[in-house]
Amino acid sequence: MTAPARTTSAAMLDEIRFDAAGLVPVIAQQHDSGEILMMAWMNRDAVAETLATGRVCYWSRSRAALWRKGETSSQVQRLIELRLDCDGDTLLALVDQTGVACHTGRRSCFFRAARDGDWQVIAAVETPPDELYGDR
Amino acid sequence: MTAPARTTSAAMLDEIRFDAAGLVPVIAQQHDSGEILMMAWMNRDAVAETLATGRVCYWSRSRAALWRKGETSSQVQRLIELRLDCDGDTLLALVDQTGVACHTGRRSCFFRAARDGDWQVIAAVETPPDELYGDR
Repeated sequence: MTAPARTTSAAMLDEIRFDAAGLVPVIAQQHDSGEILMMAWMNRDAVAETLATGRVCYWSRSRAALWRKGETSSQVQRLIELRLDCDGDTLLALVDQTGVACHTGRRSCFFRAARDGDWQVIAAVETPPDELYGDR
Repeated sequence: MTAPARTTSAAMLDEIRFDAAGLVPVIAQQHDSGEILMMAWMNRDAVAETLATGRVCYWSRSRAALWRKGETSSQVQRLIELRLDCDGDTLLALVDQTGVACHTGRRSCFFRAARDGDWQVIAAVETPPDELYGDR
């Protein structure tokens, strides 16, 4: 963690209704264009770190570890504002996304649209995954 | 259900990765302004009905029943486009929201922002809840 970017309080974290697994869904939206980039999950530590550092940190359910967005790909998300919904069980993160949010190299993870009875790809790859993640 | 507004296929529904409870989270976004209105859940039947009717239908976890948005409040959501994310476990519904999306009478459910160590209300009530739901 770097120096705190925002004042955070335990009371704020207590107002978030985490699910049985201790997680809350987080919608990431590009703050100026309004584009929805992705949906991921945070646990209490991830919310606290995100608010403290101003850099978005999720909880990776597959790796069962904190996931500092961009730590491998350098496609970081700077937090502009964190919002909480009416019943406290979903977060909206307004962010400034560096590069692409999706591991496929597309700007947004929501690149398939229901059209003509099928899911049609509606967005192009901007950065090939091998450039994002190297030769893994 | 009214007459089909879109072609739907079982194969499309099969590509959605519903969770252990048979649900998928759905982000509702106003199609033209980009505003995030709410996050709710759909089961397979709700997705099928939404695509077939062009009117957004969720699954109410509290009532354990299909929830045709606006059936009580008349604040309906007309579906503009349904999108699926890269790993198939989250939907984005671009909608045209009549009136307000939130049961508190605010346009969006995300009306609390993390500011100065607290959740601050940043949006006003547009339609009082008693006008939305009557004297219940």
